[in-house]
Amino acid sequence: MSYDRIYNFSAGPSMLPVPVLEKAAAEMLNYGGSGMSVMEMSHRSKAYEEIITACKATMREVMDIPEEYDILLLQGGASSQFAMVPLNLMTTGAADYAVTGQFSKKAWKEAARYGDARLAASSEDRNNTYIPAQDALKLSDDASYLHICFNNTIYGTKWNYIPQTKAPLVADMSSCILSEPVDVRRFGLIYAGAQKNMAPAGLTVVIVRKDLLGHARDITPTMFNYQIHAEAESMYNTPPTYPIYICKLVLEWIRSLGGLAEMQKINRRKAKILYDYLDESKLFHNPVEPAARSMMNVTFVTGDADKDADFCKQAAAAGFVSVKGHRSVGGMRASIYNAMPVEGVEKLVEFMKKFELANR
Amino acid sequence: MSYDRIYNFSAGPSMLPVPVLEKAAAEMLNYGGSGMSVMEMSHRSKAYEEIITACKATMREVMDIPEEYDILLLQGGASSQFAMVPLNLMTTGAADYAVTGQFSKKAWKEAARYGDARLAASSEDRNNTYIPAQDALKLSDDASYLHICFNNTIYGTKWNYIPQTKAPLVADMSSCILSEPVDVRRFGLIYAGAQKNMAPAGLTVVIVRKDLLGHARDITPTMFNYQIHAEAESMYNTPPTYPIYICKLVLEWIRSLGGLAEMQKINRRKAKILYDYLDESKLFHNPVEPAARSMMNVTFVTGDADKDADFCKQAAAAGFVSVKGHRSVGGMRASIYNAMPVEGVEKLVEFMKKFELANR
Repeated sequence: MSYDRIYNFSAGPSMLPVPVLEKAAAEMLNYGGSGMSVMEMSHRSKAYEEIITACKATMREVMDIPEEYDILLLQGGASSQFAMVPLNLMTTGAADYAVTGQFSKKAWKEAARYGDARLAASSEDRNNTYIPAQDALKLSDDASYLHICFNNTIYGTKWNYIPQTKAPLVADMSSCILSEPVDVRRFGLIYAGAQKNMAPAGLTVVIVRKDLLGHARDITPTMFNYQIHAEAESMYNTPPTYPIYICKLVLEWIRSLGGLAEMQKINRRKAKILYDYLDESKLFHNPVEPAARSMMNVTFVTGDADKDADFCKQAAAAGFVSVKGHRSVGGMRASIYNAMPVEGVEKLVEFMKKFELANR
Repeated sequence: MSYDRIYNFSAGPSMLPVPVLEKAAAEMLNYGGSGMSVMEMSHRSKAYEEIITACKATMREVMDIPEEYDILLLQGGASSQFAMVPLNLMTTGAADYAVTGQFSKKAWKEAARYGDARLAASSEDRNNTYIPAQDALKLSDDASYLHICFNNTIYGTKWNYIPQTKAPLVADMSSCILSEPVDVRRFGLIYAGAQKNMAPAGLTVVIVRKDLLGHARDITPTMFNYQIHAEAESMYNTPPTYPIYICKLVLEWIRSLGGLAEMQKINRRKAKILYDYLDESKLFHNPVEPAARSMMNVTFVTGDADKDADFCKQAAAAGFVSVKGHRSVGGMRASIYNAMPVEGVEKLVEFMKKFELANR
């Protein structure tokens, strides 16, 4: 592999496409003849305006985001959205939350500080290894929205359907955005920390239906008010200019590969290689209900904590880094976002097979 | 100049030291043999922990920050601090604000949404061209703090003294941090958007006396609670990893030059070149009271809006970009942060002299 790069299975921040990094490196001291780095540009300069405008336009094109949705390029991570969503959208004083992992639980708890955050469903009874079915969702008539985490990074699960709701659907898509086509029209608001599939850490993307804006609560900090950012076209204050530039390059890279439909094909292929092996392995085991398996975060265990630790150590030494599962669940996790090449997954499986042979 | 770089006088984001950009470009695809870019690293990896730890340690060393202060590396810009400061520190329900420009006014207005934000002083009567003297500050006995903006980017003024206060002093140092030594012990809290003198946009540094933490109001979003970030050592959620890495490189660059005392010498020299010329020019004029002149942002006008516009246009064509004053005040502004070389200022003054000759 050129540049002596390793295969990085980190859950985020995570791999970026090599062509994107090459372009960023080449343009570091002089972007497009401007005589400066993108990092050094005034966010109000013509050169930078072209970058942020292209980022939003390409996102709109690649994700097929209708005109009735605003794209906000913010800071603060998905964790800030846990408060921003209720502060801006919980107009009835109540909202429904489906808890299917650690982050959706955090979102629910934060919302409960601002109103009646109701538990619409939980998959904690089986250690978050499944996704509740539509008819298991307890949706309330006066809820301002239903909040879900579409892909659960830690547990390796993904909603395999888009819930039917009367209220707007709000989804944390941090770890699955841009991995496949999604019908944005089915959602009231989508948010994502960029550091998995979009850009380096420090950028948070919010895609919100315009009619949901303008109802922020009095106590909302100005910087937590979606309407303020929408009116200023994400320029109310200095935006995270460099991550936005990288996000633009990533979106252009996705488009050049054929867009999200093609991305989905590649991602399905990568996930299948891993899950097929896990299903036949006598050593490794994927604990997730097959219908709820994530295409981005593949979890696996041997059932023996010492063996798990040994595997992670040997894998790292062989150039497969960050395969250790989240500290709250243990085991292993291979995060195979868009930028992970197919051969990275193939080689990981080869390595797993060798490890299995040696550890029968 | 190598790389065909131009002189960028932007108020922020702004120039970064060339050696920093060179290092960032060289390490873009493989940082220190890690096989990945810093942008791709898990923030919980050993390699990244070394970076963030070194960033904080070098900041502590370079700025001489005592142990009783925490360094928080956050997101959201100084604009988020306008709310975070009152939400965390306004324990008496009242605070004093000195308004000396647009950002301090924004801070004051945001604080007024959360309590009794009192106007301790204002320099609006003379278009913010001066800084109120100590005996002009109306400080209240029950104020939780006095808030000042230490350097006013738009108006080109700087506090030439540190106010004496009974309550803790809170200072926005976005556009002067790292430009000269500052006695941190005189402040309760210092904050700065990094995009002027520290790093690319997307990082906000908060230096806070530990005893001021732990009093956030109930309504404070978790992500706006200093205590949460202090306890998690700025790792409560994914921090803006790449700007933190660049900040580390910038701090190492400052240290290699001799630290803040040396930086101050260079900055004084640069500012003197410009102010000396402005004081003798028959065409250009600096509107600021001499004692309050900023060392970082030098404003000037011809008194004729058309001539100002003509100057900005010709300057840009000659390779001196972003010398246009802020849209709210007009005229010109040369922001000469740490990374602006002395020769950039010398050449700008040469150019101004030629323009003056041609426009007598």
